Amino acid sequence: MNSINRQVRLAARPSGLPKASDWEVTSEPVPAAGPGQFVVAISHLSVDPAMRGWMNAGASYIPPVEVGAVMRAGAIGQVTASEHPGFAIGDYVYGTFGVQEYAASDGKGVIKLDTSLAEPTTYLGALGMTGLTAYFALFDVGRIQEGDTVVISGAAGAVGSVAGQIAKLKGCRVIGIAGGQDKCRMLVDEFGFDAAIDYKSEDVRTALREHAPGRVDVYFDNVGGDVLDAVLTRLARGARIIICGAVSQYNAEQVTGPANYLSLLVARASMTGMVVFDYQDRYPGAMAELAQWLRDGQLVSREHIVHGSISDFPDVLLMLFAGHNTGKLILALDPG
Amino acid sequence: MNSINRQVRLAARPSGLPKASDWEVTSEPVPAAGPGQFVVAISHLSVDPAMRGWMNAGASYIPPVEVGAVMRAGAIGQVTASEHPGFAIGDYVYGTFGVQEYAASDGKGVIKLDTSLAEPTTYLGALGMTGLTAYFALFDVGRIQEGDTVVISGAAGAVGSVAGQIAKLKGCRVIGIAGGQDKCRMLVDEFGFDAAIDYKSEDVRTALREHAPGRVDVYFDNVGGDVLDAVLTRLARGARIIICGAVSQYNAEQVTGPANYLSLLVARASMTGMVVFDYQDRYPGAMAELAQWLRDGQLVSREHIVHGSISDFPDVLLMLFAGHNTGKLILALDPG
Repeated sequence: MNSINRQVRLAARPSGLPKASDWEVTSEPVPAAGPGQFVVAISHLSVDPAMRGWMNAGASYIPPVEVGAVMRAGAIGQVTASEHPGFAIGDYVYGTFGVQEYAASDGKGVIKLDTSLAEPTTYLGALGMTGLTAYFALFDVGRIQEGDTVVISGAAGAVGSVAGQIAKLKGCRVIGIAGGQDKCRMLVDEFGFDAAIDYKSEDVRTALREHAPGRVDVYFDNVGGDVLDAVLTRLARGARIIICGAVSQYNAEQVTGPANYLSLLVARASMTGMVVFDYQDRYPGAMAELAQWLRDGQLVSREHIVHGSISDFPDVLLMLFAGHNTGKLILALDPG
Repeated sequence: MNSINRQVRLAARPSGLPKASDWEVTSEPVPAAGPGQFVVAISHLSVDPAMRGWMNAGASYIPPVEVGAVMRAGAIGQVTASEHPGFAIGDYVYGTFGVQEYAASDGKGVIKLDTSLAEPTTYLGALGMTGLTAYFALFDVGRIQEGDTVVISGAAGAVGSVAGQIAKLKGCRVIGIAGGQDKCRMLVDEFGFDAAIDYKSEDVRTALREHAPGRVDVYFDNVGGDVLDAVLTRLARGARIIICGAVSQYNAEQVTGPANYLSLLVARASMTGMVVFDYQDRYPGAMAELAQWLRDGQLVSREHIVHGSISDFPDVLLMLFAGHNTGKLILALDPG
């Protein structure tokens, strides 16, 4: 076991895409477990589009990461020392441990992982925030019903690929929007979507006319921008748009608003923002249902695991904005 | 009684503000009442921002007015001839009779007016589509609750001025946004708003910080554009935005979308379009309640009546986009 804890800290607030000088890799001694605490050796870091928002100053749904602080990240790992009655050495846990090799915790917001149910990394994918986001967005905000036509952007991404599968197993017609033929093929062949639209080579509006002739009942938006505007022109009466993210806008100098928003009036439709943290008291029930679907083979958790060390985090983050991941992007911290 | 029926027809689809050449005034004989029909002599025409949308080609919540057709308009008048068992000569009626002096009708969608309850013109204002729009938007879409902070744009207009009063009598804190000191004074002094913001001379975002320090629970949007973007920065958690109209955008070459729409995510807020026609089966109950408030003096119906002839319609319509009306804009067809 190491005695040094390497960390990635925010060195400067980025403008546009984060660059190397916005980060600093620091080292400090591995923390000890104080009374009521335990220490985790982090094995896998969750790499999420939302991280870009956390790097900006200003109020959001969560406080920004301060300049000089360890970058916020969800992570899993194993307990290596414990002065906490609820956590024992060897336990697998999930928590917001940050981009570092070791973290001390008092257990607040930490979930113990049942590794008999699924691989630990699944708790960053379909059994983690990813799956929970898809679950509550579809059921609570999207109010999906059997027979609905559901369109999902960023469909080959972490949340999108789980959301499409859930909508399918609830009897919806599901159309995914993603970038590139390979991703589109995977949506249909691997995740069982009814159709896929490659926004890089197709006109989304025209393709929607073909694949959703009866218009769109629920739109799960992870990207914003032109794709959001295209779907707005094809809404069914009473459609629900879930605003889950806007990856096309996170690095923009100035966000472009949806010029076609008045379609909400024409269609009597709604556009609603969602943040998974609001559903915390319902995580256990949702996780049980997600676990059941995984066991039954009705749901596939696709993780895109990059192996490396803590100092690879800045480059791995950029993969998200280049669209280089399929499924949940994870940085595995290999011993070395 | 005249034998000639003068009409205003759409001559061309306007680009930007409608101009004289987009209209044509035509004459034809006054229609006769066929079997099951009656004829109305129109006394007052409703002049609405939504009319601008009806002049455009393409699908909306209602079919466009065809080029060459009589311009669509809500109107009131008196029955002058009847072969319909439900309508007698002398009855006051409301219907979508169009911009003309006389209309034949089979009674579909026509409301008989109880003139013992209110002046006929009130049925174009607080007791008509104006009041009904405010009513269903606030209760069904905005889900207003006692203690909510409600912000209304276009607040000195027809729907806005009624909406503010209804929100007040339901125990909300109400802030109106309007153009000019006179309108703002009227919002507070005549309609009982708690505060008013003059978007022409004040920074709306700063003014909202002062007047709605606890942020905005419900935003009733009649204007879109910069005002919508300003309010988006001040949403309370779970806020509801009602998209009722967008008068700032109706004559624009290209609609500007709300750049701050990601505030919906931060605030877990919703933005929902509404069209009053969807609530037709509940008009009677709503009208009874509105009439009660009018009788009790809790609600003032403000009508801005311009006297003239049918050929004045094009100019009166432009008053809306110049912000020259307060309350419900009506063209009274004076006998002449």
